[in-house]
Amino acid sequence: MTYCIGMRLEEGLVFLSDSRTNAGLDHINTFRKMTCWEQPGDRVLVLLTAGNLAISQAIVNVLEEQVVKDSQQPGLLGTSTLFDVAVLVGAAVREVYRRDAEALKEFGVEFNPSLILGGQIFGEDPRLFCIYAAGNFIEATMETPYFQIGESKYGKPILDRVIRPDTSLDEAAKCALISMDSTIRSNLSVGTPLDLLLYRRNELEVKRHVVIEAEHPYFAMLRTRWGEQLRRVFLELPNPDW
Amino acid sequence: MTYCIGMRLEEGLVFLSDSRTNAGLDHINTFRKMTCWEQPGDRVLVLLTAGNLAISQAIVNVLEEQVVKDSQQPGLLGTSTLFDVAVLVGAAVREVYRRDAEALKEFGVEFNPSLILGGQIFGEDPRLFCIYAAGNFIEATMETPYFQIGESKYGKPILDRVIRPDTSLDEAAKCALISMDSTIRSNLSVGTPLDLLLYRRNELEVKRHVVIEAEHPYFAMLRTRWGEQLRRVFLELPNPDW
Repeated sequence: MTYCIGMRLEEGLVFLSDSRTNAGLDHINTFRKMTCWEQPGDRVLVLLTAGNLAISQAIVNVLEEQVVKDSQQPGLLGTSTLFDVAVLVGAAVREVYRRDAEALKEFGVEFNPSLILGGQIFGEDPRLFCIYAAGNFIEATMETPYFQIGESKYGKPILDRVIRPDTSLDEAAKCALISMDSTIRSNLSVGTPLDLLLYRRNELEVKRHVVIEAEHPYFAMLRTRWGEQLRRVFLELPNPDW
Repeated sequence: MTYCIGMRLEEGLVFLSDSRTNAGLDHINTFRKMTCWEQPGDRVLVLLTAGNLAISQAIVNVLEEQVVKDSQQPGLLGTSTLFDVAVLVGAAVREVYRRDAEALKEFGVEFNPSLILGGQIFGEDPRLFCIYAAGNFIEATMETPYFQIGESKYGKPILDRVIRPDTSLDEAAKCALISMDSTIRSNLSVGTPLDLLLYRRNELEVKRHVVIEAEHPYFAMLRTRWGEQLRRVFLELPNPDW
């Protein structure tokens, strides 16, 4: 499994992904779920993937090949809007579906990728999309400023309580890390290292991309103190008197 | 969907269930998921059900009929251990499976009940079981003092952080209500009124069974203050400085 979060805030974008993959409980590996493309001054694109790892890698590979091979049609580095990048990602999903879905089905493997795409292209605001297995997609709005993919339920309550469009990037990153911690504690199939990327509006380059291991000082502090404070708040609330 | 929690603590047992059922988003109803059987001085049995409502009701009905019809073999009021009650509930699940599963399958309806059974029979300690669709079951231990059925993921992190075998009944009830609140906020298919039952070890009768509507003063206070305090704790934690 996987857990990834993407947020679109007034200040910019926040992306967080774990790196655990498993093919059964006895076959656990570390693979990054975050891919970045960058042309400083022109665009930053971030893609998070969940679902079967072979499918996710095939989708990223289709996109990479478009960039490298064919300078006439430079793929996601040549579009003028992030919407058009989402269309390209959706098309890559469909290409992998055509190539692999039938063979996978014969082995009982579901075609189940889900993706978060975010970034900014010069001339546009930062944008964030969630792309489904059918290659269709939706865009984040002020009312729904974040998307989750993968093992999303454990970490959703804290996001719902905290994240607003005017949440600062640093606070949003803190909230994403708490949401990830709740998920890691409850589900063995989600684990460190984490990829955290903070993108401030109009930077048009990747300035803050941090890899967070379990013993990372800030993450370790957050895990400990959040748990302690949660228990303290819990104990301070009055007990029922039926 | 449904969300139910059962806990086995040193002081006794806590049960909490919601009451929302849905057959599609445009067909939402209120049905209680908690059934109690009581013989004061002898036994208290509490059953929580999740999954298809018709299946849940059929299982309860099989158990009720055994109690009423046949005084020679008085069903779950005649056993001498709670383990034997769990066996009877498992047998009822299997009877409903034999009767209905094939017809349900033709209409694409999965046979998916899950149940929590808890209580105390005179001469035994309080016990808690989780019963699966195959009629098999597991029992709660000191290491795993609670079970959840239904829409369990949103509300699991707070249980994992707070519930220990020596948690008091009132604190466990408070924690269960917070867990339920997180679930209700994140999932439309879980809703009030709630059934909350607190059973203190060796009472051998039901003394505290509360029906909690959305506007119940304690629950409303808890929802508001927990959300406020969570946000306050969140804001007090230092932001990252990458």
